[in-house]
Amino acid sequence: MAYQKLTTRAENYSQWYNELVVKADLAEQSAVRGCMVIKPYGYAIWERMQAELDRMFKETGHQNAYFPLLIPKSFLCREAEHVEGFAKECAVVTHYRLKNDPAGKGVIVDPDAKLEEELIVRPTSETIIWSTYKNWISSYRDLPILCNQWANVMRWEMRTRLFLRTAEFLWQEGHTAHATREEALEEATRMLNVYADFAERFMAIPVIKGVKSANERFAGAIETFCIEALMQDGKALQAGTSHFLGQNFAKAFDVTFLNKENKQEYVWATSWGVSTRLMGALIMTHSDDDGLVLPPHLAPYQVVIVPIFKKPEQLQEILSKLDPVIAQLKQMGIRIKLDTNDQQTPGWKFAEYELKGVPVRLAMGARDMENGTIEVFRRDTNTKETLPLEGIAEHIQALLENIQQTIFQKALDRRTAYTRTVDTYEEFKEEIKKGGFLLCHWDGTPETEEKIKAETKATIRCIPFDGDKTPGKCMVTGKPSAQRVVFAIAY
Amino acid sequence: MAYQKLTTRAENYSQWYNELVVKADLAEQSAVRGCMVIKPYGYAIWERMQAELDRMFKETGHQNAYFPLLIPKSFLCREAEHVEGFAKECAVVTHYRLKNDPAGKGVIVDPDAKLEEELIVRPTSETIIWSTYKNWISSYRDLPILCNQWANVMRWEMRTRLFLRTAEFLWQEGHTAHATREEALEEATRMLNVYADFAERFMAIPVIKGVKSANERFAGAIETFCIEALMQDGKALQAGTSHFLGQNFAKAFDVTFLNKENKQEYVWATSWGVSTRLMGALIMTHSDDDGLVLPPHLAPYQVVIVPIFKKPEQLQEILSKLDPVIAQLKQMGIRIKLDTNDQQTPGWKFAEYELKGVPVRLAMGARDMENGTIEVFRRDTNTKETLPLEGIAEHIQALLENIQQTIFQKALDRRTAYTRTVDTYEEFKEEIKKGGFLLCHWDGTPETEEKIKAETKATIRCIPFDGDKTPGKCMVTGKPSAQRVVFAIAY
Repeated sequence: MAYQKLTTRAENYSQWYNELVVKADLAEQSAVRGCMVIKPYGYAIWERMQAELDRMFKETGHQNAYFPLLIPKSFLCREAEHVEGFAKECAVVTHYRLKNDPAGKGVIVDPDAKLEEELIVRPTSETIIWSTYKNWISSYRDLPILCNQWANVMRWEMRTRLFLRTAEFLWQEGHTAHATREEALEEATRMLNVYADFAERFMAIPVIKGVKSANERFAGAIETFCIEALMQDGKALQAGTSHFLGQNFAKAFDVTFLNKENKQEYVWATSWGVSTRLMGALIMTHSDDDGLVLPPHLAPYQVVIVPIFKKPEQLQEILSKLDPVIAQLKQMGIRIKLDTNDQQTPGWKFAEYELKGVPVRLAMGARDMENGTIEVFRRDTNTKETLPLEGIAEHIQALLENIQQTIFQKALDRRTAYTRTVDTYEEFKEEIKKGGFLLCHWDGTPETEEKIKAETKATIRCIPFDGDKTPGKCMVTGKPSAQRVVFAIAY
Repeated sequence: MAYQKLTTRAENYSQWYNELVVKADLAEQSAVRGCMVIKPYGYAIWERMQAELDRMFKETGHQNAYFPLLIPKSFLCREAEHVEGFAKECAVVTHYRLKNDPAGKGVIVDPDAKLEEELIVRPTSETIIWSTYKNWISSYRDLPILCNQWANVMRWEMRTRLFLRTAEFLWQEGHTAHATREEALEEATRMLNVYADFAERFMAIPVIKGVKSANERFAGAIETFCIEALMQDGKALQAGTSHFLGQNFAKAFDVTFLNKENKQEYVWATSWGVSTRLMGALIMTHSDDDGLVLPPHLAPYQVVIVPIFKKPEQLQEILSKLDPVIAQLKQMGIRIKLDTNDQQTPGWKFAEYELKGVPVRLAMGARDMENGTIEVFRRDTNTKETLPLEGIAEHIQALLENIQQTIFQKALDRRTAYTRTVDTYEEFKEEIKKGGFLLCHWDGTPETEEKIKAETKATIRCIPFDGDKTPGKCMVTGKPSAQRVVFAIAY
């Protein structure tokens, strides 16, 4: 069976992405509007992300817990801004029973089983968690509480795209409770740094750390910190957020504690999350027209081995050479797949593993057997070389690290090239069409931000923590600006 | 603060369980009827179960995936028995939007946002998964499909108990597709054996493997295999099920494949699952009036170390002795907690860790320092001894295995004592009141089974695979019986 090529990125970036997600067996649309099926290969990548993040959360003192899927409608209304942001497009459970249709056709909702109060499928869990924390906290001795939950959440999105925006998605949400403002702020910053570290070291995606403008803040937060990544098409993607919630949810759910001075005080809060959206970021940062390019640190298989044989005896001969290499690679903790299937041609397999982004492919045929060599293909550069079998395991171990660094550097170089300083609004309107991050002065008002968004679709991705802090004048209004901020058109 | 004792098992077993779950910080009721919050300590035990099961699933060739939370109502109706079993007491999503109450009080369901077809929060996922498999399968080359999913599910239970029966619970559900009847049956059996192995080796719970009678079968299955455990109060608990689904779901969702003989055939299916209900089984099998008793293989902390000190200098001295022991224990892969908190007394800590079921407690005070000894307490027998510090790590490593075996043996001995052969219905009616497993002859009819249940509350837990296969006569009707079956009153 011949391999059908992907639409190229140049032809249609959006279609390239949609095709790639499906053809590489990552995910597909389900029968339920806006909800995806995450297929085994896609889920295996997500599991690796989960494992690393979970380890990092635990190393920073967090524990996992689990809170209910359904939230009473009234809970969402307790925090005024939160309800505006979250209680609108959501799945509402109104009944708890079906019954046989008296007309004899299947089942219908039983009108007698109407809930007194509707329940909402969680769009995020601040409200149900703070209603619980109220019972866990009475004294400063009960603080901090450092909980995380791995869960599914639901937001009734009208326009959905696999991984990037789906009605149901998987995520983790950390929810912490603290005795002081400083400690909560420190926690929110710590977790932002964990996310940035994870994005750069595991996903090989360079990110800008910063704080959101008021317009882009999480509904109910005092400050939202974020990491922003740049995709190959020049659009930005928010890859993780960490919120300093102040005492907003403590006040909404009346959660107080007796502090060391023996006074009642409201508890300070943070929340932070990343989701299966990261899969979209991963795909769009590294992949090419041949398919996925996966960073070795997250690839389900880091190395695929394809023996090239015609007869079973040949396979056995090749395997006798490969077995010690395989053993050594496994010993090194390298995840490998050996493909001895005789139903597909080597060419078909090569295309398949390129599509699936396996970082390194080893192939061995009759000539390699004679010469004591092996063919080594690296997916990030699509290049191959024939190397002596001797010492190959060590070579591959180093090669995997090299690929990890190379794709990070490539993404970083692209971002650098795509990041420009712009000083006038006229220039901005031209430059933003080319994509990328634009560093500009802004007067700090929501009005100016909204005007820019309305006229150019660009939003302030963040007010960056690092980089140039020189004050200047807003490119739109000429009013004073404390520092340049990052504009982009975003996913 | 003084420690409040649990209600004893003898006083009120049910209350003992409820108190223990809450006091040991495993779980609690949430603000949502029938839905629990799994607290960090409880979740840590569940995570260990997940990790071991997940490893076992992967070792038997399975991959994880994720399917939608919400299922179209019509899907549930496709399989006639399935809808009878599952489509009744469930959470029904009817709307997808809330709006501000025109009366100004919070938010109300937007009547304009009514779904054309209601969506059900999954009670189990056969239907949504088989609607997906239809697109994945066309030839025998696409088979088998061996997927598992870790997910939350919901069944609107009227009477709930933490872990044992909650509206929302966490579980894993395996769903496999096969080319032949034999292969599917083999898979269903394989996974039952995985469950039994997990229950016995990790949970230290002896289980009986067998097949369910028609009355107790999963709605939509041809055969339901199960593992049955016996709790301390003599009641049975179904700890896991594995279903041979035949071609029922393939027919319902029209999933066919081209077999090797080039003929279209319906696909054969299995599904299998265990849930957070296992937490209930774990608690009720081993725990005592002082609190939890955890098997070392699943305990979040296997060893807690409590230095006994008055001044910080004393703590430092003790730690200087303990540090090499701690390093060695960690090296051995033993999970330890060092508790140097000076806000609580050693006595309080001892009671706390007994309540939480930590398998081994080490304590070291001034006298131990002088004598080069350490106090070793084992939770399963509530006994302690003072041992030389020298060689203590090796001792503890062996002790943990010993505890694991000891609590399994204790549970097995209890089950053996609780399992009786009964030949007449009069005797049965007396014996069943005492609890335990009763091995009896039954004529194989649902009518007899229902009569027994109505009159005694006892159900057939399973027709066991192992043990006595001698035919006999039904204790109720005197009709022929192929072998003894296992009766009990069950959770």
